[in-house]
Amino acid sequence: MSKGLFITFEGTEGGGKSTQVKLFVEKLTAEGYNVVQTREPGGTLISEKIRAILLDPENNLMDGMTEMLLYAASRAQHAVEVIKPALEQGKIVVCDRFIDASIAYQGYGMGLSIEKILLVNSLATGELVPNRTYMLDLPVEIGMQRIAEKRGHNEDLRAIGLDRIESKAIEYHRKVRSGFLQIANTQPERVTLIDATQDIGAIEQDIWKDFLQMENSL
Amino acid sequence: MSKGLFITFEGTEGGGKSTQVKLFVEKLTAEGYNVVQTREPGGTLISEKIRAILLDPENNLMDGMTEMLLYAASRAQHAVEVIKPALEQGKIVVCDRFIDASIAYQGYGMGLSIEKILLVNSLATGELVPNRTYMLDLPVEIGMQRIAEKRGHNEDLRAIGLDRIESKAIEYHRKVRSGFLQIANTQPERVTLIDATQDIGAIEQDIWKDFLQMENSL
Repeated sequence: MSKGLFITFEGTEGGGKSTQVKLFVEKLTAEGYNVVQTREPGGTLISEKIRAILLDPENNLMDGMTEMLLYAASRAQHAVEVIKPALEQGKIVVCDRFIDASIAYQGYGMGLSIEKILLVNSLATGELVPNRTYMLDLPVEIGMQRIAEKRGHNEDLRAIGLDRIESKAIEYHRKVRSGFLQIANTQPERVTLIDATQDIGAIEQDIWKDFLQMENSL
Repeated sequence: MSKGLFITFEGTEGGGKSTQVKLFVEKLTAEGYNVVQTREPGGTLISEKIRAILLDPENNLMDGMTEMLLYAASRAQHAVEVIKPALEQGKIVVCDRFIDASIAYQGYGMGLSIEKILLVNSLATGELVPNRTYMLDLPVEIGMQRIAEKRGHNEDLRAIGLDRIESKAIEYHRKVRSGFLQIANTQPERVTLIDATQDIGAIEQDIWKDFLQMENSL
């Protein structure tokens, strides 16, 4: 049994995930918790190199199975090199994306077998499961709109500047969102669904309130 | 059913595998066969990028599970983009290394579960199995000596110039060799064991004779 807490953030694009991870880590640190902030794909030297392959638009012939295995390889290294050692030291590990993202994107989004994804990822991580997952949910159109605004081009989502994953069709993102919701609905004891259409402060408060509740119940 | 023939070359370092692949492909081409020569890890743009991560000595913290999954990811892309399309066109695909190498290096060599490696690779390739595998076998000491001579430094195998995989200890290579021999012994209908202590011409003849026999028996 690990002594720390493993907390992940999930959700479709444009839900303010990165912002909330940052605010949550700042709050934890201010409150005196010993925190490690990390992200997927990435989080180690090797995993960042794998991330570069995954996100490079040049690799447009990438097969869904290849993509799934690369995420799993990156995750295996991340788990053994960063997450597990930190948990064993009693730290709180806050991770931007984890296995749920593979289920939602490669499984629900791209149609790969969810059973196979779970099997490979369970092998990859030695059955590592988050203590809590914050799932930032919002309609796909709003998320896409936010991304476009952030980059300063509202009119054409396929314009230069969207990376390989973001530029995939809206329909794909709808399937991904339904995947995330399915995960949240079937694992309510682990996954807390957060309404990401709220303003930043309200989302931050929802997450912090849930975290304190969870901590008190341990 | 594919119409082509899928032929792989395996064996420990220094057995002359690359030379024999080249000679075999030249002979096939001279005899009028339609041949595709390829290799693992690599064989596609994406797979070559994965290969670079696998072979970079900077990545010395790489976990065995990460390594196994990276090989499987590279192989998945290679199978779907190169091997299967060529086989469907009735070509002979000659590949330097395939799944047996993962079994021998990551399984027998590094101690990863062979069952897990087979499972992941079967998923990765859609159960693609070679029609024939030429396994070039020789004692590890002779193989290592040959590599050292080729690079012009006989005395210290750990000297600069050996890549991450070749610089692993002799004991590791002994385990890998025993893994390859185990595969050859248990699957004689697919794997032809070749005595790689012979001179280049004799090895070439052994392979060609076997190939003609196999072709006649189809």
